[in-house]
Amino acid sequence: MVHADASNFASGLTKEETYQQVLLQAEGLFSDQRNWVCNLANAASLLWHAYKSLPFPSNQVNWAGFYTVDRSAPASRPQLILGPFQGKVACQTIAFNRGVCGAAATQLRTQLVPNVDAFPGHIACDGDTRSEIVVPILVDGGSDEGAAGEEKERKLVAIIDVDCAVQNGFDEVDKLWLEKLADLIGSSCDWD
Amino acid sequence: MVHADASNFASGLTKEETYQQVLLQAEGLFSDQRNWVCNLANAASLLWHAYKSLPFPSNQVNWAGFYTVDRSAPASRPQLILGPFQGKVACQTIAFNRGVCGAAATQLRTQLVPNVDAFPGHIACDGDTRSEIVVPILVDGGSDEGAAGEEKERKLVAIIDVDCAVQNGFDEVDKLWLEKLADLIGSSCDWD
Repeated sequence: MVHADASNFASGLTKEETYQQVLLQAEGLFSDQRNWVCNLANAASLLWHAYKSLPFPSNQVNWAGFYTVDRSAPASRPQLILGPFQGKVACQTIAFNRGVCGAAATQLRTQLVPNVDAFPGHIACDGDTRSEIVVPILVDGGSDEGAAGEEKERKLVAIIDVDCAVQNGFDEVDKLWLEKLADLIGSSCDWD
Repeated sequence: MVHADASNFASGLTKEETYQQVLLQAEGLFSDQRNWVCNLANAASLLWHAYKSLPFPSNQVNWAGFYTVDRSAPASRPQLILGPFQGKVACQTIAFNRGVCGAAATQLRTQLVPNVDAFPGHIACDGDTRSEIVVPILVDGGSDEGAAGEEKERKLVAIIDVDCAVQNGFDEVDKLWLEKLADLIGSSCDWD
């Protein structure tokens, strides 16, 4: 049975080891469950508790969660809509042309932003946030349901968004492992 | 614009005043948004930060969030499925005949449990939990889509679940205000 202990991360592990544990726990949780709301909710919890177990700057993470592609938005104005997360109340929708999340959704590439105040069009949903990483979650195309990236082989379904209350909160290690997690989440869930 | 400050609750308020602020913030958030995933995610955040601002025992809350009725479950085996929450990793599905959440889903009544260890069939998803309150979220019937309570006028769509790491974590004040919140959430979201 799923148990809250899955969120308990030992202190003293490296960031790589901690992310590895996140991936292993997520794989276990997703092995018998493909509901995306359920899986993103538990994944946000795993990420949040992983960061809190790590030393500075990772333990300064102040938001960890997901936005999904809003299926109800018109094709002319694509937007993301808030999904499960841990942290303070967050923006409900984000247009594809706005901020760090929008850049990830448009470019289909990870955005590693050491200083959000220097990012053009950054959305200051939480004034405490100083750095951010946003990783697109892509799935194999072939469906004609996609609200975005229809012409591409890989289709955007969601993004992972993690905010940190200090500058330079994230590095290439975060990028590498969050991209692994995005791959796992993309292939492990039914996206309606 | 939605701002993280909505999660900031002053200390020194009474529990009633704090819940009142949760309700007001939730009303504001839901006024231009009916997506249930988005709204439950922000509501879980409001509840979590509200409890953390309160004195003992409310500040010992260790999980606050939602389960929804699992539309994919067969009518013969109705179950709840995990929705947005704040806290540690949680059980993915809960059968209607199991535990405190199942009792609320079956009886369509709030379950106020001062000591979960004395509750028959309690699901020990987190061994730290000692007391729990579960409030059903009901909407007006009239649809034939309901997986449960089809013969009743009010149809179950979800539950609010809050766990506390000490016994007697909740009282009639929590029940009153969480039922108000359940009413607001029920009428403010589109439930697919």
